Amino acid sequence: MGMIGGGTGSFIGDVHRKAASIDGMIDLVCGAFSSSAEKSIVSGKALYLPEDRCYGSYEEMILKEKELPADVRMDFVAIVTPNHMHFPPAKLALENGFHVVCDKPMTLTLEEAIALEKIVAKSGKLFALTHNYTGHPLVKQAKAMVANGDLGNIRKIQVQYLQGWLSTAVESTENKQAAWRVDPKRSGIGGALGDIGTHAENLVEYITGLKIDELAADLGRFGEGRTLDDDGNLLLRMENGAKGTMSISQIALGEENNLAIRLYGEKGSLEWHQENPNQLITRWLENPIKIFTPNGNDLYPEALNVSRIPAGHPEGYLEAFATIYKNFVTHLMAVLNGETIEKPDYPTAKDGVRGMKFIYAAVESDTNNAAWTKI
Amino acid sequence: MGMIGGGTGSFIGDVHRKAASIDGMIDLVCGAFSSSAEKSIVSGKALYLPEDRCYGSYEEMILKEKELPADVRMDFVAIVTPNHMHFPPAKLALENGFHVVCDKPMTLTLEEAIALEKIVAKSGKLFALTHNYTGHPLVKQAKAMVANGDLGNIRKIQVQYLQGWLSTAVESTENKQAAWRVDPKRSGIGGALGDIGTHAENLVEYITGLKIDELAADLGRFGEGRTLDDDGNLLLRMENGAKGTMSISQIALGEENNLAIRLYGEKGSLEWHQENPNQLITRWLENPIKIFTPNGNDLYPEALNVSRIPAGHPEGYLEAFATIYKNFVTHLMAVLNGETIEKPDYPTAKDGVRGMKFIYAAVESDTNNAAWTKI
Amino acid sequence: MGMIGGGTGSFIGDVHRKAASIDGMIDLVCGAFSSSAEKSIVSGKALYLPEDRCYGSYEEMILKEKELPADVRMDFVAIVTPNHMHFPPAKLALENGFHVVCDKPMTLTLEEAIALEKIVAKSGKLFALTHNYTGHPLVKQAKAMVANGDLGNIRKIQVQYLQGWLSTAVESTENKQAAWRVDPKRSGIGGALGDIGTHAENLVEYITGLKIDELAADLGRFGEGRTLDDDGNLLLRMENGAKGTMSISQIALGEENNLAIRLYGEKGSLEWHQENPNQLITRWLENPIKIFTPNGNDLYPEALNVSRIPAGHPEGYLEAFATIYKNFVTHLMAVLNGETIEKPDYPTAKDGVRGMKFIYAAVESDTNNAAWTKI
Amino acid sequence: MGMIGGGTGSFIGDVHRKAASIDGMIDLVCGAFSSSAEKSIVSGKALYLPEDRCYGSYEEMILKEKELPADVRMDFVAIVTPNHMHFPPAKLALENGFHVVCDKPMTLTLEEAIALEKIVAKSGKLFALTHNYTGHPLVKQAKAMVANGDLGNIRKIQVQYLQGWLSTAVESTENKQAAWRVDPKRSGIGGALGDIGTHAENLVEYITGLKIDELAADLGRFGEGRTLDDDGNLLLRMENGAKGTMSISQIALGEENNLAIRLYGEKGSLEWHQENPNQLITRWLENPIKIFTPNGNDLYPEALNVSRIPAGHPEGYLEAFATIYKNFVTHLMAVLNGETIEKPDYPTAKDGVRGMKFIYAAVESDTNNAAWTKI
Repeated sequence: MGMIGGGTGSFIGDVHRKAASIDGMIDLVCGAFSSSAEKSIVSGKALYLPEDRCYGSYEEMILKEKELPADVRMDFVAIVTPNHMHFPPAKLALENGFHVVCDKPMTLTLEEAIALEKIVAKSGKLFALTHNYTGHPLVKQAKAMVANGDLGNIRKIQVQYLQGWLSTAVESTENKQAAWRVDPKRSGIGGALGDIGTHAENLVEYITGLKIDELAADLGRFGEGRTLDDDGNLLLRMENGAKGTMSISQIALGEENNLAIRLYGEKGSLEWHQENPNQLITRWLENPIKIFTPNGNDLYPEALNVSRIPAGHPEGYLEAFATIYKNFVTHLMAVLNGETIEKPDYPTAKDGVRGMKFIYAAVESDTNNAAWTKI
Repeated sequence: MGMIGGGTGSFIGDVHRKAASIDGMIDLVCGAFSSSAEKSIVSGKALYLPEDRCYGSYEEMILKEKELPADVRMDFVAIVTPNHMHFPPAKLALENGFHVVCDKPMTLTLEEAIALEKIVAKSGKLFALTHNYTGHPLVKQAKAMVANGDLGNIRKIQVQYLQGWLSTAVESTENKQAAWRVDPKRSGIGGALGDIGTHAENLVEYITGLKIDELAADLGRFGEGRTLDDDGNLLLRMENGAKGTMSISQIALGEENNLAIRLYGEKGSLEWHQENPNQLITRWLENPIKIFTPNGNDLYPEALNVSRIPAGHPEGYLEAFATIYKNFVTHLMAVLNGETIEKPDYPTAKDGVRGMKFIYAAVESDTNNAAWTKI
Repeated sequence: MGMIGGGTGSFIGDVHRKAASIDGMIDLVCGAFSSSAEKSIVSGKALYLPEDRCYGSYEEMILKEKELPADVRMDFVAIVTPNHMHFPPAKLALENGFHVVCDKPMTLTLEEAIALEKIVAKSGKLFALTHNYTGHPLVKQAKAMVANGDLGNIRKIQVQYLQGWLSTAVESTENKQAAWRVDPKRSGIGGALGDIGTHAENLVEYITGLKIDELAADLGRFGEGRTLDDDGNLLLRMENGAKGTMSISQIALGEENNLAIRLYGEKGSLEWHQENPNQLITRWLENPIKIFTPNGNDLYPEALNVSRIPAGHPEGYLEAFATIYKNFVTHLMAVLNGETIEKPDYPTAKDGVRGMKFIYAAVESDTNNAAWTKI
Repeated sequence: MGMIGGGTGSFIGDVHRKAASIDGMIDLVCGAFSSSAEKSIVSGKALYLPEDRCYGSYEEMILKEKELPADVRMDFVAIVTPNHMHFPPAKLALENGFHVVCDKPMTLTLEEAIALEKIVAKSGKLFALTHNYTGHPLVKQAKAMVANGDLGNIRKIQVQYLQGWLSTAVESTENKQAAWRVDPKRSGIGGALGDIGTHAENLVEYITGLKIDELAADLGRFGEGRTLDDDGNLLLRMENGAKGTMSISQIALGEENNLAIRLYGEKGSLEWHQENPNQLITRWLENPIKIFTPNGNDLYPEALNVSRIPAGHPEGYLEAFATIYKNFVTHLMAVLNGETIEKPDYPTAKDGVRGMKFIYAAVESDTNNAAWTKI
């Protein structure tokens, strides 16, 4: 794996590296960690990389690695830059024969997303988008329960992704994470929408197997001087007639990373919280509440397959993230071995386009005073 | 206290009686428990009432009790009938000199509500509406924290009231509770809106001290053949610019009585769940999460005053309900003694009108495809 | 009901009155609230009692009430005094034809307890001991589950009752509750043992249907100058071979009223917490965790029978306490009507003797450096 | 890193590998995964190791690796075999110049443990014992709070480690994990005591900084035919006069990995649960409950230093385990660089001896009918 972005002090670069390494299937072999060659080398050395595999630009990395012997060069790139720097390196990598793992949202604009989906298809290379929360064993269990009809037809949905870290003007401090996220040039037209809203949208569609048909969005820009949304309240209508709410925020003071979902069907319902990911709470017409745990009793194979350790040993954020990598690399190794895999389970460019459409629909709805808008 | 409605088998009549009796300040002395005199007597006897104080109609009760000596006759009536039978007895009681406790929503129609508020004012009698959830010690604490500025300006609100008991067609069974609630003639134009939505609306406005300025409502009618809403998803805009969501449902399968609220301010935030009412979770910019408990450390007097027993001895639904009665009766006794009370703390006809306006605004919004509608 | 003790400012007297009144079956008609006639009258008036039913001593009350007409005089007495004042009024009341409800521990000494059990038997009157926690619906459910073999043979027990209110020297303040509890003359030989340990012991034996065979107790006296235990750590061996621990404390700083029990059987296990009494957590060999709620799905009749309100409306401490009163008074009314009741479900003098034996065994064990001691 | 044990299908070997790899500081370079050379190669290949670094015995591995160039050979060995195979390879490795990471309990017998501590000292090599739970950020926070006097003098301790996986006779199935754990020849004289009791003992002493002075242990052997304990109930007396209970079990049916601790001091108290490791609940004399989270507000540097990702992104079992490795390897790299580190923070041979003494004391106490026994 080669990494683009993610130099010293980066949050998400470090997360990608740890997630990629947990299962012992992936080695970081090179990186363009910074647009400064020196800084890139400093970052790379701290990661025990040789200097000659630390590049000063993604172009340099992709082109030079391409020239290396097959058993030496990186197999794929992981793109962990701010949103505006997703499309260019993804395109270049794919067009030069490298598979790609890319952070979300997929691109800066919807146009780029649509273009990228085509580039992926044309390249024949693999592309994974790190909607990491779908890697949790109990999210897999939830999806399997819906797919198997345990809950019956879904009627009602509540999803929320609440953070409080932008409650104050942290973008005016030295917080680099905040600075680019409130800047439309680097984030795109969505603020919280892109950063966390796409996770919520992806989680709903992943678990339910249903598309959001239309939405009504009332966005907030509470931080002084912010032009991008830092808060959003949405009504959802699903393709099957289910209705729901989505609440997202980065000014929900005191919330850390409160992503949660509730689904109500005609036969059962379920509830899952990212901050306590090792419980799936389910409710039933005639039975008491049942709580499922990773590697615990009565799970579907989809959940068991991604549980790493015995029940009661909590897995967390990194492990779920690692499962995205693991499923991607498992697919990649199969491809490299000339094998095929049935239904590889990780988010792709298609999900990326979907996420960008969600952002655009929400912004359009908000502009029209929360009018219903199709995704 | 005399009771109108609430015969044998009634849920809410029994609740009112238990709640009224907890603090030893109120005796049930008469009742018109049924529109059948015989049934009324059967119900009354089971409550240890003498036969001659069990009436066959509310008119009979009000007019006959009025003739009894002051130290014998009831001091006030508690109206616990379905919604369509709130206004007539309330009007008659007030106009005949009786104070009134009335279940919510206050009336069948908004017109009745407006009329009743005037009748109350004209009568000079006391009128309490049993929005019982505001009786919880930690709801008082939440209100006091907001009022004292602990949270700063409120920016975001989440409120939900989720039940699942109408997930199936229980109105087709012998469930009397369900039958009238899905019947517009007895419930009014709101289904879940009137039954539980008004509680959610009242809780938000009570705690925040802010009015909902406008709302966008997408109502569901999931039960086959239902004409009234059994589900609702709403966007809220508060008078101070705060935004939020409200989710209500009686088809949220498996939910029992999940009323919950989250408020996010510029300095702090709070979270309260009716099903676990003895915890108030608060979050802060610089401090760890703090959890308050009834009669626990660091409470405001408003919360301490309504905590009955030492910390750690859970109080529940009936105790909160009892606090509405206690505050009402304390006010009543003061009035009877020619005293005055500063800011009596129980919901009144004003809250009742507000609730009816909420229902009407939500139905209007829904009719207009969730267009923003002023309350 | 007549009350002995429980004057203004009393914690437990107020609890008894509220608990007795919830179900509308019991009226307080007289009281000896204080050993001072004037104070007793002040207390009684605040409870809306006529002056002539407020007595200056329990002897006066019992003897004078006895002379009143049957339809006027109290039916039973509730004794809510400190421990040393349980036996004398209980004896006198029983010997004068009154039924008795008595707070726990039953008496000051084991000898008194054994004597009282005989007096009850001889009198033919009813006697209830307010081990109130066994009144919770989910404690009934737990007992029924064990009795029906759902858990299989019980192997392991954890029980704890943790409070922190004696962490500091509150007995040196004006806290009357603390003063008598640390005084052997009024409390007996057990401190925390008597005050809360007996609740823990009773809960274990009630739910499991098993007797504690022997125990090893290591008691703490952490408060300066205290001669009675304010903390205890115990090993338990049950009559069926199950083993366990009991941890009790009144110096567990910050704990409010943390009574909790865990039982592990050969087929299932359960967990219940008094501070969150509306959940019974159960675990199973092959199934996921199941959580039962009052009036919720799949309960045994024993639990449903004592659930007052629909699921999701939390019942608490007072309601459970009220169930002891309700079951006692239901039995009493049956007796007064010449009827019999099968297995009346409230704690009796037999449980009281058991509790005193528990205290004595624990103190003896502690004196012998935690040697195993039979109860 | 070279690994001894931990072939395909091993639970703990896989855990060690994942934990060692998370932080990108450690590469697995060789292994003696099995006593069969072929099986070792199969396991090694699945881990992407070259065949010539997969050895058929630990002796072979240690002696051959020793001959490799310094920049090729392993720096340390990780021993993840059953207990009886800890001492021999640890001794050989240390005596041949390799540092050691060893699973717990440290050895089969106390004698071995004492000998090993001396061998470590003599060798001048580093030795880490994987009491992994002390790697959690909030365990570090708890330790720091005690050390800084926030809780005051500790008075009361509750610790428990409850599992249910040996509730049935799984050792009679193909469960290799169970087979050796119930076999004294491979486990030593402690069953649950060694497997999980030592974790509980270590956690108490790590957080409090206090030694257990003496204990009284009542062990259970509930599984048919088991000679080793599968359950234990203990009383504890700490060197400072604090008292407490320890409850351990592998027959606590339905429990997954319920390690939890509660400490009560004179000024505050705390509570931590391994299954929900991202909350530290604290209670105070005058303040409300405060809950700390990893990377959350108001943490001590000791906790912040080991938090990897922003608050609200749960870390779990593997991350805590990884922290043991990280701290060990950080120390190791310092040593290799000729630097020194102040107070390296990972468990050592001293803790290993302490754990073995705990096992021996508990077994001795149990043999003497739970008599007090010094550790």
